[in-house]
Amino acid sequence: MRDAYVVGAGQTAFGSFPEESYRSLFATAFDRAMAAADGLGPADIDEAVVGTLGVGGRQLGLSAPAVTEHVGLSVPTTRVENACAASGYAVRNAVQAVKSGMADVVLAGGYEVMTDASGDATKYWLGVSGETEWERLTGTTFAGTYAQMASAYFDEYDADVDDLSRAAVKNHANGAQNPHAQLGFECSLEDASDAATVADPLTLYHCCPTSDGAAAVLVASEEVAESMDAARVAGVGAGSDRVGLFERDTYTSIPASERAADAAYEMADCGPDEIDLAEVHDCFAIAELLAYEDLGFCEPGEAPELLREGVTDADGDLPVNVSGGLKSKGHPIGATGAGQIAELWKQLTGNAGDRQVEGVERGLAHNVGGSGGAAVVTILEGEA
Amino acid sequence: MRDAYVVGAGQTAFGSFPEESYRSLFATAFDRAMAAADGLGPADIDEAVVGTLGVGGRQLGLSAPAVTEHVGLSVPTTRVENACAASGYAVRNAVQAVKSGMADVVLAGGYEVMTDASGDATKYWLGVSGETEWERLTGTTFAGTYAQMASAYFDEYDADVDDLSRAAVKNHANGAQNPHAQLGFECSLEDASDAATVADPLTLYHCCPTSDGAAAVLVASEEVAESMDAARVAGVGAGSDRVGLFERDTYTSIPASERAADAAYEMADCGPDEIDLAEVHDCFAIAELLAYEDLGFCEPGEAPELLREGVTDADGDLPVNVSGGLKSKGHPIGATGAGQIAELWKQLTGNAGDRQVEGVERGLAHNVGGSGGAAVVTILEGEA
Repeated sequence: MRDAYVVGAGQTAFGSFPEESYRSLFATAFDRAMAAADGLGPADIDEAVVGTLGVGGRQLGLSAPAVTEHVGLSVPTTRVENACAASGYAVRNAVQAVKSGMADVVLAGGYEVMTDASGDATKYWLGVSGETEWERLTGTTFAGTYAQMASAYFDEYDADVDDLSRAAVKNHANGAQNPHAQLGFECSLEDASDAATVADPLTLYHCCPTSDGAAAVLVASEEVAESMDAARVAGVGAGSDRVGLFERDTYTSIPASERAADAAYEMADCGPDEIDLAEVHDCFAIAELLAYEDLGFCEPGEAPELLREGVTDADGDLPVNVSGGLKSKGHPIGATGAGQIAELWKQLTGNAGDRQVEGVERGLAHNVGGSGGAAVVTILEGEA
Repeated sequence: MRDAYVVGAGQTAFGSFPEESYRSLFATAFDRAMAAADGLGPADIDEAVVGTLGVGGRQLGLSAPAVTEHVGLSVPTTRVENACAASGYAVRNAVQAVKSGMADVVLAGGYEVMTDASGDATKYWLGVSGETEWERLTGTTFAGTYAQMASAYFDEYDADVDDLSRAAVKNHANGAQNPHAQLGFECSLEDASDAATVADPLTLYHCCPTSDGAAAVLVASEEVAESMDAARVAGVGAGSDRVGLFERDTYTSIPASERAADAAYEMADCGPDEIDLAEVHDCFAIAELLAYEDLGFCEPGEAPELLREGVTDADGDLPVNVSGGLKSKGHPIGATGAGQIAELWKQLTGNAGDRQVEGVERGLAHNVGGSGGAAVVTILEGEA
């Protein structure tokens, strides 16, 4: 099994861009990834994997070739869709393609345009990845699903709304340093805890925005990577589960995340205590707390303590979501997973600019589809 | 690069099944694949790849975990969508997963439920994989797109409507032997040529039906395959192209098919003259003619001759679509590619029952997305 490396990555800013199309956004991310991959050109790309949820008024079938044609590629192109984990899975497929020996350089990316929907259409957008018959069609929004997890968590452990807010405050502080962040401003604990309720106990500040954006990652063989700014894909694991939250045994953990993490740690031959930096899927603040526990950064019920003690702050022992996370950086569904890996690549190769964290040898990205029907965890290693 | 094998496959009948759901159809295909894979159980499956276009009133996001959860799997599950080539690509991903060493047994399948749409909704269904702005939204149906190819072919070569009909007559004759075929009846040349026009020059008999159905294929490593009815995946190639027909240089060839075939032949180290049997993507009759030429079975313009001489009949030198093809067997979009490979596996391992073709050592499956925005070609080898 030969090694695979991330050898370049880029993304658009995440935000609301009515003047852009899904194709123009993808092209920007692609151009930035190519520019970052010094020495590689479009002709070196053997195949492409593109993640998008792709609901809405754009290209529905063949939405992956629709963006790769726009950047001039006619290589094998596959669309992958696992809801909000679409491009995390796209990167995983790219890793398999390289390890299989069938490709030396694979483009993995994703895109989404969401802000042209409004009101009920937005709820529809966010709801399509919930379970259809008993969640979406009965009116359960995604905020509602994660609110149920937060309520269960408060019941089971010593935690309250301020613990959710601490995740938001941290991620906004981080996003304020990221020029690509959609909500690149700071907020206070009071701002977050006292904001309007979206789905009790979640307030507006406990929910990520809807976003437009794209991200692209280049995955390559060792031979290609040798002379480049490269981060080795030490492990990548995935897991799936019942799509509907109501069909799972637990509301205070996302078992698909645990399965994905276990597989990634095993492949990388490392444990959670050897991770230096992580990008986790904080679509709602409670999701970041569950991620700490599902990824093994702490024991069940201890996530609030990590936040209270600043362990996961940008200057803490284990910085989490230094990009701003989904909360502040934004969450254009199909772009999120590749965007997380783009951030890891930048941090591991010294390309993170003002928000560079020093001494990062091993980074982890955690990308969840829906309320946990699918999850994928990727571990990258740099040279520090 | 280790070898990958198809070690079992199954499908539902294709047709109109109002009493079935997308989940129940997938479960039937899964059960049949497992039953065919003697010695393997669900616990042996390491991951799953599921192809579906997935438009309509069913699960939209996370539609792959929605069917794998139903058959009791919680392994990594990825949805792949490349329009009508969805599950051809799913099988390709499964091959990469096995060759990468990250999995030993991968379930690759697909499903679609289409017959609950009617009238305009059906046109919508079939249109979503056309180019959006200049084809679908301006009213071009898929029959219309392929009709343009047929018109261009008639202009360029010595061919007429009877040549299209010969493909339909052959495939209906084959489908009449297949208990899984949706339109399992024979038709005459007159039936086909004189039928109502759908999009000139295509008549009703030159168009595949809309279908419900599912198919599943098990791809495994050599070690797993050793004691099983196995067919080696000698080659698998894919290609993509402009999604819109109007943006391509030629209307009388599908360049993505040529690219996919070239890659598959190279990987399999064989040429078109070494193929004993093929399942090709005859969504419309003209597509079967183009396939003969794009796959190298004959020179450009010679496809009508192959049909006139019976070369591709079930008892000809190179039987094509002995299953009945999309025309007679049916075309439940996401199930079609895996269904083709299921047919190859049956033929190569002596499991094709009454329609077994003797002496088949090497089979080829050809699966096209949209009007040629994507294509995938898979070559399997048996022991004959």
